[in-house]
Amino acid sequence: MTITIRPVTGLPEIRAGDDLASMLAVALGPLAPKNGDVLVVTQKIVSKAEGAFRPAADEAAYRQIVEEEAKAILRRRGPLAITLTKHGFICANSGVDRSNVEGEQVVLLPADPDRSAHRIRIRVERGLGVSLAVIITDTFGRAWRRGLVDVAIGVSGMLPILDLRGSVDMHGRVLEVTEVAIADEIAAAAELVTGKASGVPAALVSGYSYPAGEGRATDLIRPPAEDMFR
Amino acid sequence: MTITIRPVTGLPEIRAGDDLASMLAVALGPLAPKNGDVLVVTQKIVSKAEGAFRPAADEAAYRQIVEEEAKAILRRRGPLAITLTKHGFICANSGVDRSNVEGEQVVLLPADPDRSAHRIRIRVERGLGVSLAVIITDTFGRAWRRGLVDVAIGVSGMLPILDLRGSVDMHGRVLEVTEVAIADEIAAAAELVTGKASGVPAALVSGYSYPAGEGRATDLIRPPAEDMFR
Repeated sequence: MTITIRPVTGLPEIRAGDDLASMLAVALGPLAPKNGDVLVVTQKIVSKAEGAFRPAADEAAYRQIVEEEAKAILRRRGPLAITLTKHGFICANSGVDRSNVEGEQVVLLPADPDRSAHRIRIRVERGLGVSLAVIITDTFGRAWRRGLVDVAIGVSGMLPILDLRGSVDMHGRVLEVTEVAIADEIAAAAELVTGKASGVPAALVSGYSYPAGEGRATDLIRPPAEDMFR
Repeated sequence: MTITIRPVTGLPEIRAGDDLASMLAVALGPLAPKNGDVLVVTQKIVSKAEGAFRPAADEAAYRQIVEEEAKAILRRRGPLAITLTKHGFICANSGVDRSNVEGEQVVLLPADPDRSAHRIRIRVERGLGVSLAVIITDTFGRAWRRGLVDVAIGVSGMLPILDLRGSVDMHGRVLEVTEVAIADEIAAAAELVTGKASGVPAALVSGYSYPAGEGRATDLIRPPAEDMFR
């Protein structure tokens, strides 16, 4: 099994109201996607197409939007706020982003990234005549590790967690690692080609056999009752 | 730029004292590694080759070893302990693992995974005549997200963090995402082929242009003074 990760190139600058799914289908054409491939789309172009941005002329306006987008503020350090978003994600500054956007605008997370992923998947599948999974990614920090990694904030067409409960290892012993966050691993893999300075907003991952099903990225959120570090 | 992730197959069961680097070089032969490829090796075979396992006849013995391997216990919930390891990693049960090992043994983390990665790299490079990076991976949980992902616990031949400070986006604006944990992203990508039930203990990642340098996986540990969630 060889997995390949290819950049989806040739997309124009995305603007509010753009039919992103159709544009992705066109851009994917030369890659000849196959049934079972995963289309990974970075959050920013999804948010832009959905018009999820707001004017913010200065730092104070930006801070105000971060607070409005937060369901709760978990920690503050200087200009950084670690927040719980309306979706249930825990990330820096409610995921509100200032880079890669024109003028004095900031980009919010999509209102419902799972729904965005679903809509993109259905339309790309129709356009290309193949069955895909779609993952929408954003770049999040981690509690105890330096550096950021891309994670899945929207999922459609696959289960985001590979459930190995009951599986046994080579020695017949039940596996200790029972739930693998494969959608996050695919998101991280895709970032290697969609990296922030590259200008590539999407990638196609081929060759990985994911569990089919109607999963959602919100399945990846640890329920507050199980969260020991909030 | 296409990135490929290929399984390294054909390794025998690894035992204490095995010359793992030479065995990896042999197993890599058919994949014809090129300069700049990344060899990803899962922790368990490194620990086994180094003899980093101990007898544990029952749950109490296992718990005792978890405590001994911990520099600090951060949280407990039922049988689960979230610990700070001697290396500085924060993970479940000090990284002590019971699956994929013969008999009543448990496998510890390598004593110095960066050093292990360095030794493997030097010997595989000599054996194959190519220049590589090596990442040793383990499977860790995350504070706020369900499911586990593979991360880098040992690194050699590359910088584990891509530093984009000072880079600008397509609109000339300085990037907000300035440090990307690329070694963790490569580790996560590799898990898609080394998955726990697959029996594949290593992968070769090709086509990614990482920053060369003498990095260490310990560079990925957030310094305690910056840690808001310990």
